[in-house]
Amino acid sequence: MKYPHSIEKLLKHLQKLPGVGKRTAERFAFDLLARKDEGHLDELASALRLVKEEICECQQCGAFTDTVNCYFCTDTTRRRDLLCVVASPKDVFTIEGTREYRGLYHVLHGLLSPLDGRGEEILQFSKLLARIQADNIKEIIIALDSTLEGDATALFLKDQLATYDVQVSRLAFGIPVGSSLEYVDGGTLARALVGRASF
Amino acid sequence: MKYPHSIEKLLKHLQKLPGVGKRTAERFAFDLLARKDEGHLDELASALRLVKEEICECQQCGAFTDTVNCYFCTDTTRRRDLLCVVASPKDVFTIEGTREYRGLYHVLHGLLSPLDGRGEEILQFSKLLARIQADNIKEIIIALDSTLEGDATALFLKDQLATYDVQVSRLAFGIPVGSSLEYVDGGTLARALVGRASF
Repeated sequence: MKYPHSIEKLLKHLQKLPGVGKRTAERFAFDLLARKDEGHLDELASALRLVKEEICECQQCGAFTDTVNCYFCTDTTRRRDLLCVVASPKDVFTIEGTREYRGLYHVLHGLLSPLDGRGEEILQFSKLLARIQADNIKEIIIALDSTLEGDATALFLKDQLATYDVQVSRLAFGIPVGSSLEYVDGGTLARALVGRASF
Repeated sequence: MKYPHSIEKLLKHLQKLPGVGKRTAERFAFDLLARKDEGHLDELASALRLVKEEICECQQCGAFTDTVNCYFCTDTTRRRDLLCVVASPKDVFTIEGTREYRGLYHVLHGLLSPLDGRGEEILQFSKLLARIQADNIKEIIIALDSTLEGDATALFLKDQLATYDVQVSRLAFGIPVGSSLEYVDGGTLARALVGRASF
């Protein structure tokens, strides 16, 4: 079986997307080709280039932005002494989606992972320390994954921030909203018990 | 929550891909952005444009090709009096993947669907009749979906081809290879019984 060269190439690049294998890539490519006359191929290509050209990281917090300082850093209605520390720029939008947070962000751009050779030097950590002093930060919320790397990074942050005059907290662990106890794993239930709140 | 404009645009276009909703589009977009420095965004955009520029439909059979006549039509080792009629260009590659077929193809570019206003005039049907006479076709294999539209189109083809001196067959219906009887639906089992072959 022989796809024309340019289709092969498109399939190769589509397969680099997360969770996209050969068959999904084929579905995407042939759907794009079938609707070629609607201009979808061109539009997607243009949208990709536009993102490439316009999006950069906010110089202050590291979130994705199309201006020098991001939407969040320039929003004067936000608390400027409260930072939410996240691993990736995507997490900023996830937290934002809750509509529960009205402070600023700091993106680490990764998590500690000694096995993969990712130590503190590659995290935007020194930048965080500099911000705490320069911007007079009072409170830091650590919003990292509940994984080995997330836990290691959270502990590292907690240690390093101990000498600073900031209040440090981490997102609560517990039962996901809407789930039933019988499907919650033991580890989560144990954390939910420890973290129980008066009711 | 406010994504920068160009990210919003990319998300909109990614969501036009089959089976891609808001969350998958976000996963794709942020993965592309996270690996921006590896040039993946540019490569994908270029691959899309290349496909747009290079791929057209074979003038003879309607399969996707980057030359005037396609890989299949120009392959002189194939039987030139045998046509496999398929609905879409993708199906050509699917049939080809079986390595069981060594004839030529004819792509209808659609199936009859009176409800959606797709009648015989939009199918590449007159082109098929012209080919049968011009190329002296002896045998036609109808390889269409086993759906309402596929069945309707297959019946229509059978009727129309009755006056021509060609042998017409349709792909066999039966138990999918590797499946167990208990999971096969009644309709399929009935067709498998009717189509039983000596063993």
